[in-house]
Amino acid sequence: MVNRLIQTLTADKVSTRPSDLEAHGRDEGYPETALPEAVVFAESPEDVSRTLRLAREHGYAVIPFGAGTSIEGALVPVKPTISLDLGRMNRILEVRPGDFLAVVEAGVTRKQLNERLRHEGLFFPVDPGADASLGGMAATNASGTTTVRYGGMRRNVLALEAVMADGEVVRFGRPVQKSSSGYDLKDLLIGSEGTLAVITKLWLRLSPLPAEVHTVRVYFEDVGAAAEGAFALMGAGLPVARLELVDERAIAAVNRHLGRNYPERPMLLVEFHSSTPEAVQAESAFAEELLREAGATGFDAARTAEERTAQWEARHQAYWALVHTFPGRHYMITDTAVPLSEMPGMVRYAQELMDELGLEGNILGHVGDGNFHTIVAARPGDEYARAEAFSARLVERALELGGTATGEHGVGLRKRKYMAREHGPALAWMRRIKAALDPEGVLNPGKVLPDTEAG
Amino acid sequence: MVNRLIQTLTADKVSTRPSDLEAHGRDEGYPETALPEAVVFAESPEDVSRTLRLAREHGYAVIPFGAGTSIEGALVPVKPTISLDLGRMNRILEVRPGDFLAVVEAGVTRKQLNERLRHEGLFFPVDPGADASLGGMAATNASGTTTVRYGGMRRNVLALEAVMADGEVVRFGRPVQKSSSGYDLKDLLIGSEGTLAVITKLWLRLSPLPAEVHTVRVYFEDVGAAAEGAFALMGAGLPVARLELVDERAIAAVNRHLGRNYPERPMLLVEFHSSTPEAVQAESAFAEELLREAGATGFDAARTAEERTAQWEARHQAYWALVHTFPGRHYMITDTAVPLSEMPGMVRYAQELMDELGLEGNILGHVGDGNFHTIVAARPGDEYARAEAFSARLVERALELGGTATGEHGVGLRKRKYMAREHGPALAWMRRIKAALDPEGVLNPGKVLPDTEAG
Ligand SMILES: Cc1cc2nc3c(=O)[nH]c(=O)nc-3n(C[C@H](O)[C@H](O)[C@H](O)COP(=O)(O)OP(=O)(O)OC[C@H]3O[C@@H](n4cnc5c(N)ncnc54)[C@H](O)[C@@H]3O)c2cc1C
Ligand SMILES: Cc1cc2nc3c(=O)[nH]c(=O)nc-3n(C[C@H](O)[C@H](O)[C@H](O)COP(=O)(O)OP(=O)(O)OC[C@H]3O[C@@H](n4cnc5c(N)ncnc54)[C@H](O)[C@@H]3O)c2cc1C
Repeated sequence: MVNRLIQTLTADKVSTRPSDLEAHGRDEGYPETALPEAVVFAESPEDVSRTLRLAREHGYAVIPFGAGTSIEGALVPVKPTISLDLGRMNRILEVRPGDFLAVVEAGVTRKQLNERLRHEGLFFPVDPGADASLGGMAATNASGTTTVRYGGMRRNVLALEAVMADGEVVRFGRPVQKSSSGYDLKDLLIGSEGTLAVITKLWLRLSPLPAEVHTVRVYFEDVGAAAEGAFALMGAGLPVARLELVDERAIAAVNRHLGRNYPERPMLLVEFHSSTPEAVQAESAFAEELLREAGATGFDAARTAEERTAQWEARHQAYWALVHTFPGRHYMITDTAVPLSEMPGMVRYAQELMDELGLEGNILGHVGDGNFHTIVAARPGDEYARAEAFSARLVERALELGGTATGEHGVGLRKRKYMAREHGPALAWMRRIKAALDPEGVLNPGKVLPDTEAG
Repeated sequence: MVNRLIQTLTADKVSTRPSDLEAHGRDEGYPETALPEAVVFAESPEDVSRTLRLAREHGYAVIPFGAGTSIEGALVPVKPTISLDLGRMNRILEVRPGDFLAVVEAGVTRKQLNERLRHEGLFFPVDPGADASLGGMAATNASGTTTVRYGGMRRNVLALEAVMADGEVVRFGRPVQKSSSGYDLKDLLIGSEGTLAVITKLWLRLSPLPAEVHTVRVYFEDVGAAAEGAFALMGAGLPVARLELVDERAIAAVNRHLGRNYPERPMLLVEFHSSTPEAVQAESAFAEELLREAGATGFDAARTAEERTAQWEARHQAYWALVHTFPGRHYMITDTAVPLSEMPGMVRYAQELMDELGLEGNILGHVGDGNFHTIVAARPGDEYARAEAFSARLVERALELGGTATGEHGVGLRKRKYMAREHGPALAWMRRIKAALDPEGVLNPGKVLPDTEAG
């Protein structure tokens, strides 16, 4: 098989170097790993087609690989596998400012794109923290800090080019703001974690960079109160652009890790994007009033771009601070989402449960979307087993409340066991979709769908 | 078959009265009609299941029927058919203000829901003009005047209950703001025009009623200039809530029909929804500045709720004014969408082409989304053939520009002939989806997908 790949694609696109295999048999958050047989570094949709056709012929699985920043085991082989790395397909093909449109290859990263867009006064708003590839972000239906205002991948990807399991190159969707034409396979491929097709190109909806940005740190007595503050803002219909909860432990970890002295209190990070100074002023003043009524105990507004970057540092470095504080541990990141009114109860429950189980970690939340993470650092073995129990109890609580096992990280291997419970009879219809698009099961087998209905 | 339906469902749910058959064999805009064999008035998902099972057994087609306001022929039988009317399933099952959530049966109409929500300070933003059913709006992926700010059905429907072709009742999606769990069949069913499943229940995302609303009529020399004005607003990232183009002919028709004296000039209707008086003031002042630079020749702001209703009357009555002006004609409503920068060229082209072909009609546009309609009133026969040629040329131009044959009305029978050209190889994958979900072709056969690749 490897020889056939080399023959077909040329040797510089195929690697069996141990370091390459090792880097492609794992992700950023799943404790188990397994090596693929080879890594293909595709440079075109045709390379992707050829790889899929050969793999199918030889009975290998293919796992698309973006930037490798996912955390639920979606990249880990479960049978003999060719890892298909899209990283070399990293050209920004077109930017059409007048159409608020960028056309990119799947391996382009979010930061690379935004760097290129800065001079146009535009940006691509979906921000999963990590510097993920846009293909990988589509494949996991990524979202992030700005989703409360700008939406996640489904809203911001207008069309996709994908290579199907049989090697055919197909475009789904059109580069327009809306369409009611035909079946929506674009949104079906988004979030399918490499199990239905390999995404090779994306038509992205861009947004104008906001003229006015206002960021403020808002302190609360406890995480539940912070979540209630967020809820008050949402209810007032204020156009918040970001609304993130960070708990006192995350701040403490960042202070230790980076030598900062941010106040170690539960807080909301609130950001407004407005088009006039008066609007941003009025909106943030009104927000402050609402937050004070909801129990906020203090405010720190960022006055300059540097101060704003510092505000967000506490959010974006929380994961790395934990990794630094507890090196060599396994990191378990939970990702439930629940109806908005249940958020305060959920974050309180998470903090209490973490203490009850003697676990160390932080809480970070996209609270405007009802989605939050706990990041737990656990020693392999018994402690990690408790972290798994912790994650399971949060998922069970979320499902009871009508919520979801994963707000944005995806199913991978880890969350498969909840699919029957979350989706019920819908799961069998998802299997029909898989069978219709990838009848031989070439694409990322063993992910998303559980092996049996029992999970 | 009819006897079996009556036996299974009871006689009061089954009708073969000529007036019922007639009302269910047509829509609001397609010139051809055909009678179903019977109409079932379902009162529960079980009624829907039973109807589907019986139809399958007896080789009948089933066409779901919402409010019948669609216009592309999606309701017209092409083989022996049971029309499945969801109108009696019109209960608002739950409103959870804290979760910005309503749970409704598919036959609830948009106006019925908003009436109920008014006292909660909430609304459901998708506004297709007509008082459509929410099931029908999901089935056509409806959008409308507020979509530029609030999105269309995909963004505002969180989850669906549907009855599949084999009669199984299935829920797709969860009532949360976001999820990356499993395949997105919810969005696949949205826009499938009754060909993949019958929608019976919807979990809807509600929005807070805006505290401040500001509406202004903005006049321009010609429709192209008006579209350019819209483009200037979009580029500035102003949070417009509505941005509609209405041409001078539509206004003239409304004036004649309702005895008004609105200025008969091409105009934009611009609306802002803001949470503070200062924000709405600043945003609309900035908009006025941009619009003046873009060539606006005059402004009329609505000062009261009554004046606002009057502003929107010109938009919402344009279709009925035309029908009234030219009774007994066929009405052809075009629905292309193109990338934003192409809008001014497209509306100019439409107006010139209408004149060139000697057709009478109006132009109305959701210009913030790149989507506009021309409404042509044509005499049956030669003139209607010219209206069809007109529509075809607009679609061809839109497709050349990367656009879509239908921005929001759907494919039905009328637009099937463009599917191969618009979607290329994707069309064959849409067929696979149809075969996977409705292998026997019970659900609304002959719609959306063309009979052959040639169209
Ligand atoms: C510190 C940290 C913070 C994070 N925060 C967030 C967050 O806020 N929000 C969020 O959504 N995620 C977050 N993530 C998770 C991760 O960044 C996202 O899931 C991201 O979208 C993965 O993109 P990637 O390019 O790294 O994909 P990969 O990890 O390479 O792949 C992920 C999945 O997508 C598939 N895939 C990749 N590329 C393609 C392609 N071109 N075609 C088809 N399938 C493909 C893979 O097979 C795999 O199933 C975080 C991760 C870390 C480590
Ligand atoms: C004057 C006028 C203006 C309009 N303006 C707009 C506009 O701005 N935007 C817009 O999007 N549309 C507009 N429309 C079109 C129409 O209102 C929409 O398509 C609407 O969504 C149709 O809803 P309905 O309940 O009337 O569906 P119907 O017309 O009854 O059915 C439409 C399609 O959906 C299917 N369907 C209906 N209910 C269900 C269900 N429960 N489950 C599965 N399938 C179902 C039917 O089989 C059919 O294929 C306009 C129409 C008119 C007459």
